[in-house]
Amino acid sequence: MKVAIVGGTGYGSIELIRLLQMHPHVEVSAVVSHSQSDSALADIYPHVTGVLNYTLESMDIAKLKESIDLVFFATPSGISMKYAPEFIENGVKCIDLSGDFRLKNLDEYEQWYKGLPAPKAFVESAVYGLSEFYENQIKSASLIANPGCYPTATLLALLPILKRGIIDPNTIVIDGKTGASGAGRGLSLSTHYTELNDNVRAYKIGEHQHTPEMEQTIYAETNQLTKVTFSTHLLPMTRGIMCTIYAALEEPLSTADVLQQYRGFYQNKPFVRVRSEGNLPTTKEVYGSNFCDIGVHVDDRTGRVTIVSVIDNLVKGASGQAIQNMNIMNGWNQTTGLMQLPVYP
Amino acid sequence: MKVAIVGGTGYGSIELIRLLQMHPHVEVSAVVSHSQSDSALADIYPHVTGVLNYTLESMDIAKLKESIDLVFFATPSGISMKYAPEFIENGVKCIDLSGDFRLKNLDEYEQWYKGLPAPKAFVESAVYGLSEFYENQIKSASLIANPGCYPTATLLALLPILKRGIIDPNTIVIDGKTGASGAGRGLSLSTHYTELNDNVRAYKIGEHQHTPEMEQTIYAETNQLTKVTFSTHLLPMTRGIMCTIYAALEEPLSTADVLQQYRGFYQNKPFVRVRSEGNLPTTKEVYGSNFCDIGVHVDDRTGRVTIVSVIDNLVKGASGQAIQNMNIMNGWNQTTGLMQLPVYP
Amino acid sequence: MKVAIVGGTGYGSIELIRLLQMHPHVEVSAVVSHSQSDSALADIYPHVTGVLNYTLESMDIAKLKESIDLVFFATPSGISMKYAPEFIENGVKCIDLSGDFRLKNLDEYEQWYKGLPAPKAFVESAVYGLSEFYENQIKSASLIANPGCYPTATLLALLPILKRGIIDPNTIVIDGKTGASGAGRGLSLSTHYTELNDNVRAYKIGEHQHTPEMEQTIYAETNQLTKVTFSTHLLPMTRGIMCTIYAALEEPLSTADVLQQYRGFYQNKPFVRVRSEGNLPTTKEVYGSNFCDIGVHVDDRTGRVTIVSVIDNLVKGASGQAIQNMNIMNGWNQTTGLMQLPVYP
Amino acid sequence: MKVAIVGGTGYGSIELIRLLQMHPHVEVSAVVSHSQSDSALADIYPHVTGVLNYTLESMDIAKLKESIDLVFFATPSGISMKYAPEFIENGVKCIDLSGDFRLKNLDEYEQWYKGLPAPKAFVESAVYGLSEFYENQIKSASLIANPGCYPTATLLALLPILKRGIIDPNTIVIDGKTGASGAGRGLSLSTHYTELNDNVRAYKIGEHQHTPEMEQTIYAETNQLTKVTFSTHLLPMTRGIMCTIYAALEEPLSTADVLQQYRGFYQNKPFVRVRSEGNLPTTKEVYGSNFCDIGVHVDDRTGRVTIVSVIDNLVKGASGQAIQNMNIMNGWNQTTGLMQLPVYP
Repeated sequence: MKVAIVGGTGYGSIELIRLLQMHPHVEVSAVVSHSQSDSALADIYPHVTGVLNYTLESMDIAKLKESIDLVFFATPSGISMKYAPEFIENGVKCIDLSGDFRLKNLDEYEQWYKGLPAPKAFVESAVYGLSEFYENQIKSASLIANPGCYPTATLLALLPILKRGIIDPNTIVIDGKTGASGAGRGLSLSTHYTELNDNVRAYKIGEHQHTPEMEQTIYAETNQLTKVTFSTHLLPMTRGIMCTIYAALEEPLSTADVLQQYRGFYQNKPFVRVRSEGNLPTTKEVYGSNFCDIGVHVDDRTGRVTIVSVIDNLVKGASGQAIQNMNIMNGWNQTTGLMQLPVYP
Repeated sequence: MKVAIVGGTGYGSIELIRLLQMHPHVEVSAVVSHSQSDSALADIYPHVTGVLNYTLESMDIAKLKESIDLVFFATPSGISMKYAPEFIENGVKCIDLSGDFRLKNLDEYEQWYKGLPAPKAFVESAVYGLSEFYENQIKSASLIANPGCYPTATLLALLPILKRGIIDPNTIVIDGKTGASGAGRGLSLSTHYTELNDNVRAYKIGEHQHTPEMEQTIYAETNQLTKVTFSTHLLPMTRGIMCTIYAALEEPLSTADVLQQYRGFYQNKPFVRVRSEGNLPTTKEVYGSNFCDIGVHVDDRTGRVTIVSVIDNLVKGASGQAIQNMNIMNGWNQTTGLMQLPVYP
Repeated sequence: MKVAIVGGTGYGSIELIRLLQMHPHVEVSAVVSHSQSDSALADIYPHVTGVLNYTLESMDIAKLKESIDLVFFATPSGISMKYAPEFIENGVKCIDLSGDFRLKNLDEYEQWYKGLPAPKAFVESAVYGLSEFYENQIKSASLIANPGCYPTATLLALLPILKRGIIDPNTIVIDGKTGASGAGRGLSLSTHYTELNDNVRAYKIGEHQHTPEMEQTIYAETNQLTKVTFSTHLLPMTRGIMCTIYAALEEPLSTADVLQQYRGFYQNKPFVRVRSEGNLPTTKEVYGSNFCDIGVHVDDRTGRVTIVSVIDNLVKGASGQAIQNMNIMNGWNQTTGLMQLPVYP
Repeated sequence: MKVAIVGGTGYGSIELIRLLQMHPHVEVSAVVSHSQSDSALADIYPHVTGVLNYTLESMDIAKLKESIDLVFFATPSGISMKYAPEFIENGVKCIDLSGDFRLKNLDEYEQWYKGLPAPKAFVESAVYGLSEFYENQIKSASLIANPGCYPTATLLALLPILKRGIIDPNTIVIDGKTGASGAGRGLSLSTHYTELNDNVRAYKIGEHQHTPEMEQTIYAETNQLTKVTFSTHLLPMTRGIMCTIYAALEEPLSTADVLQQYRGFYQNKPFVRVRSEGNLPTTKEVYGSNFCDIGVHVDDRTGRVTIVSVIDNLVKGASGQAIQNMNIMNGWNQTTGLMQLPVYP
């Protein structure tokens, strides 16, 4: 199968390229970059020297739609909405790693993303690519709205116990912690080495555009309108997201009880690993891999449960899940090309 | 004034030594270390080479009580309770950076610290050294139970709005984040460089011994029995604590309203800096200094307030606050020797 | 093919396990650990949870020699010399990642490793596994002395120009820089997070046991007795070695001239990537991969050449090169299972 | 005494402000910034909130020359040469932290700095502010060319043994390693957090503008024309420079012999700390302080000496040495306001 990657100089794109190089059924035929077309990829990312000889191309839909089976968009907001419709109308499937097609409510898109939304018909037909929950819809989708990194870590941790009514949805607090790669390769003072090293910074408190994405999916799965408290912190590390999630239990349960619920839920989901009691995951334990690891602690004193969910933001939080979705769309085993162990240490 | 420092090879001790070297009224006359007595301090900490010529001493109360005015204990749990009583009975004041004298309820001490408590009379007479709240009691104290690092960051953030009834005490969630120096100089796998670099680890969820210390002080200030949800995370950085604190507002207030409450509360407290709206502190902005910086965000959607409180765990969270308390005990300006700017970057 | 790994709880072992999981022809049948036998690997390294179910075994040569085709030793000095001979005598090939069989001169072993050497006959028959230089000998070897991390980075950089007489061997200075994983998982103050973060430490200046290994190979390849100046530095990073190497040119040459020599030398060596002029490699550009990247700068002012050579110390500097050697021993393409791109960023 | 600081938003300036706040005799009366005039310093550097209320000013020489006794320039190349002459002609002394007045040979300035040099008369009258070597000239200077960070660490290590003829000047190799703060606050890909974390990068090999500064001073002190091999590496840390320096001994000497030479040389120099045998300094051991620590190892095998010299690039490598020079110019003890211990850990 031949695929194109749009957004060639970003970290999402380069991670797609790394992961697809290990995929047995896929060839990356084109890497498209608006800003760096005609450059050699190896000049921008020297780590591919001698292995990959891509020259970045400008977008040429007419050419691509003839030669390509599927397009990954690893682009900033506002780009995929311009190009994906034409690809889809020409039978080329699209997996969009940006937020353009995630929010069904177009007003919410405008409000949180501060820009015009994608065409309504395409937003409606887009399937939200949280692989563990929407496998059936993904199978037949033409357009995947690949989830954001924080929503992936959060929803995989929350949905099982929300669906089973174990926690009170009005008490959810999500404390998100991310490595700097989530902010991309664009330069900024807050990701300047000297300013971030040995430092931790809270950012976008109450304003993060991933908030409505979480709430929309919680509503879809539970039929309950919920407003979550979601905060985000930039940590001095390259990769990894940890979401520490707090909620009040609806009734007294032990840590073992709650873990059993998760285990039942994810028993056939190879990329979600539920840890044992007393064993909380760290981000490095999923580094470079497509796993989401979940640990749980119930505090009898307070009647609250704390859930620790970790992913690699560039893999399960972006490019890895996109490939998992591509596998599902093609009827392949969803783990195809993705079962590498985390890089540890 | 002549002081001794007990616990000479730990980070708390070495930070006391650094800070006291800049203090105009104090001379460190003895540095006591059980494990390394007779070693030169410069052999254990080469950064003091050529400046300080201390030889570590074993504990000799008989000698010290004659020559010393005040003792700092920067020791693990269970040590100061053995020695402080004799010093106090001989008129030598003590400031204890460990948890030995913090919990008035001796059962709670046994439960959370897993060890026998200090003598009841001394626990009762000990003054909790949260400088901004107990200045009057500190003035006349013989024994200071210097607060823990997390309680300092948390209580300075919570007490003003709890005392004024702005938040619901039953909804408090405290997400703590610390650098590795808080775990001390003792070796462990979780603070092995290779395991912590580029990683974040949740630890002691629901079990941290600083929990009852927070609850005891909240009760003392508000007369309300409260159980807080408190979690802690080890971050890949050396110094710094950030506590991100969540609570439900009792009535609708704006961020500006809440900030005004803090400003009123701390207007004469030189070490607490309340940030302006939209401006959240990072840990590096207090690095090496005795400041506690507080930022606030009210989320109208959820009716919750998020407070971000940062300190340097070794300064305001330990040695700096101990010196601030020493200043108060001696009737000096509490900022004496402590008003250095943070080391930035 | 069935292999065993001895030294199951170290970083070399866990990296062998990660890499071999991607190898199409090999099954890891046993993971041997003296210190942790009967433990589940996933309890010691939670990142393998749900993927690998190994229980660590104690060493049982009688059993292993019947069931295993090849043994990797990822052990401290002094271990493989005890066990490898019996395996080899029973027809089980061995690849030793430790230094036990590297030094042909047993006196040098005693001097630099401060311990008794391996049996002479086995040292003599051992083949030094610098894959790019000893492919023919490796093919028919029973026992591979896998090179050290620093010698790998250094010799791949030095041998081509030494063999062609381009530099004066008496002027070689090697400034080595390593991440902390090279020091292993054993705890020490110099790899305690708080002590290494934001710090750089020179260590073992003039005493590093990799020195005679370099000199022995230089002699073998050039017939010149050479004494190199070699220093090592511990950097605040997890993986990666950079050797910055200085030498006087024998005659005036341009950077382009020297690069051409390297390119000729390594044109059929897929894991050595010679960079273009003005393009010096960083360690992260080989992170997690088996590549050695080399950059060159000739300084006309001084008549010296500076060579920058980088590897991932755990891959090309240890486990990756061991697998490359296993591939060669088995007549497989040497890149089998090893051509993953570096993990970047 | 009243001083002004020009270059208000850079790290050199903010470090001057931090250090001068602890100086008993100096008041910073103005902070000048071209790019951010009229901004509050606390908006650009929140860590000064509540302590310093500076508003950045545009350059107004007419005003400043009336009110100010001394100006520090912490500016990029090409700025101080425009303004310092007028200040000096009006009796205001200048200390320039940039390279504008360091190179006596104006052609060399053009060649290495790629710009037009400062006026010849001012370059000639400028005193090179390596405090330990030029105290007498500094005392009477109007204009100080404050040394670069690498030359400070290198020259303090090299000059004593060069002056005494212990090493062969034609064999000097300097391997420089720096934290990212040396590159300033300006954004660049190589100091983007994600690109530098867990990475090490060689840069400006053979092209660093500090090269002629070192050679000029070596010539001034030894009367020998010398060409040094100098390379620089960017390390994943905030502060600190380590120069590892290699040279051939002119005659056999032990480590103890060489250390004795250093000790004799620096016995009355409080900021240079010569370590004992077997004790090599790390950068963190001078963090935030004005010390330069030097360790030595003689390798009998090769006849070469290795010297490890560390400084904090922002203190002894820039702002601290500038204040040391100001102290000397004013006849104060050179340690005034500068004897704080390093911040460790």
